[in-house]
Amino acid sequence: MNGEISKSLSAENAKELLNSVDAFLFDCDGVIWKGEKLIDGVPQTLDLLRSHGKKLVFVTNNSTKSRKQYAKKFHSLGIPVNEDEIFSSSFAAAMYLKVNDFPREKKVYVIGEEGILEELEQAGFTALGGPADGKKNIELKSDCLFEHDKNVGAVIVGLDQYINFYKLQYGTLCIRENPGCLFIATNRDAVGHLTDLQEWPGAGCMVAAICGTTQKEPITVGKPSTFLMDFLLQK
Amino acid sequence: MNGEISKSLSAENAKELLNSVDAFLFDCDGVIWKGEKLIDGVPQTLDLLRSHGKKLVFVTNNSTKSRKQYAKKFHSLGIPVNEDEIFSSSFAAAMYLKVNDFPREKKVYVIGEEGILEELEQAGFTALGGPADGKKNIELKSDCLFEHDKNVGAVIVGLDQYINFYKLQYGTLCIRENPGCLFIATNRDAVGHLTDLQEWPGAGCMVAAICGTTQKEPITVGKPSTFLMDFLLQK
Repeated sequence: MNGEISKSLSAENAKELLNSVDAFLFDCDGVIWKGEKLIDGVPQTLDLLRSHGKKLVFVTNNSTKSRKQYAKKFHSLGIPVNEDEIFSSSFAAAMYLKVNDFPREKKVYVIGEEGILEELEQAGFTALGGPADGKKNIELKSDCLFEHDKNVGAVIVGLDQYINFYKLQYGTLCIRENPGCLFIATNRDAVGHLTDLQEWPGAGCMVAAICGTTQKEPITVGKPSTFLMDFLLQK
Repeated sequence: MNGEISKSLSAENAKELLNSVDAFLFDCDGVIWKGEKLIDGVPQTLDLLRSHGKKLVFVTNNSTKSRKQYAKKFHSLGIPVNEDEIFSSSFAAAMYLKVNDFPREKKVYVIGEEGILEELEQAGFTALGGPADGKKNIELKSDCLFEHDKNVGAVIVGLDQYINFYKLQYGTLCIRENPGCLFIATNRDAVGHLTDLQEWPGAGCMVAAICGTTQKEPITVGKPSTFLMDFLLQK
C-alpha cells in the first residue's frame, strides 16, 4: 500500500509477492482511510486480494472504537469487512487479559473511551471508569479521602479525550496500592490524526501521565509490541 | 529540621552549626506544615534563627500558589514570613524567563494554576491558559481546526487539577509548531500531599503528558534543579 514500494514493483514482482504471501496486514489511519475519507484504490486492492483467497487483517492503534464499531466504519465507507478481520488496540487490551488468565472476579479500570469498555465486556471482564468518569470533578479539602476499588487488578490506558484529574488519581491509586495491579497501555503513539487537518495528543500522552505519577512502565499491547505480533501469528 | 539529625546534634555541635551557616533553606510541605497544620517546634526554631540574624528561605515545589499566596498562608499559621523569603516553583518559572531575557512581546501558555499566572504577571509577562482553560471542551469534527497563538514563546507546565484535552493540545501545538518555543516544568514531582490523608498526582504527571505528545524534555526550574540553586546562591 506504500506508494514508493508500489512504484518499484514490476508486474512480475507483484505477482510473485502475491503468490508468496498468505495474509496481508493493513494499518487503517492513512492507509485505508484518512479521517472519514477512503484512500484512492483501496476497494480495488482489497477485492483483488480477496479474489486470490488472501487473509486480510486490519490493524489500528486507535483504541476509542471497538472492532464492532470499526466494522461499521468500514461498511459505511463501502468496504465489507468482518469484525474478526479487525485488530484494534482496544481488542488487544482485552485479549492480553484473556491470554494471561486475568481473574474474572477482578475489575479493570479504564482511562480511555467506549471501544475499550466494549471489548472488555465482550471478553467477559468487568470494567470501571472510561466515559462514566469523564465529568467527575474533585473538590480538594484537607480532610477528604479519595476512595478507589481495591478489587481493580488492571488499569488500561488508551487515548482519552476526556482525561481529567479524577481519572489520573483513580488509575494511580489502583496501580500504586492494589497489589499486583497491571498497568496496560493500548499503545504509546505521541499523536494521531483525530481530525482531517491536524494531529492531536495520542494514547502516549495519557500513558506518559500515568508513568509520571506511578513511576512505572506499562505493558504495551498495540503496535509495535511483541504481544500483537505473537497474537496475530497464532490466529 | 530533620528529626534524626536533630537528635544526633549535641548542644555544642548545634552552636557550631549555627555559627558556621548564614542562610537556612527550608522545604515547606512536611517541614513547616502538613496540609493546613503547622508542625511542632517550627515557630520556636524560626524565631531562634532570626534572633541570630540568619537569612531564611522557604522553598516549595508546589506551583499552585504564588509567593504572595504563600506569605498569606504563613501569616494565617501565625508565622511572619515576607514574600521575598519565599521561593516557589511558580516564581522560579517566572524568574527563569526573566534571567534568560525572554522577549516581553512573546506570550507564555500555562498548564497549571493561579500561582504561575500571578508570578508571570508580577514579572511583567503575558500569560495565557491556566484556570481560564479549565472548562474548555473540544468537540472533534473531521473538519475542525484547533487554532493556537503563534506568538507563544514558552509553555510552562506545573501541577494542574483541571488538566484537560484542550490544554494538552494547546501546549503541544505551541511546543511543536512555534519555532524555538520553550518547554518549562515547574518541577517533576510524581505525587504530592494536596490533602492530609493521601497523595495526588503531582506536576510530574502533567509534565510527562506533554513529554509524551511532544517527545521533548523540559527545562526544570524547581527542586532539584541547577537553576534553583544558582538563583538562590546569587541572591
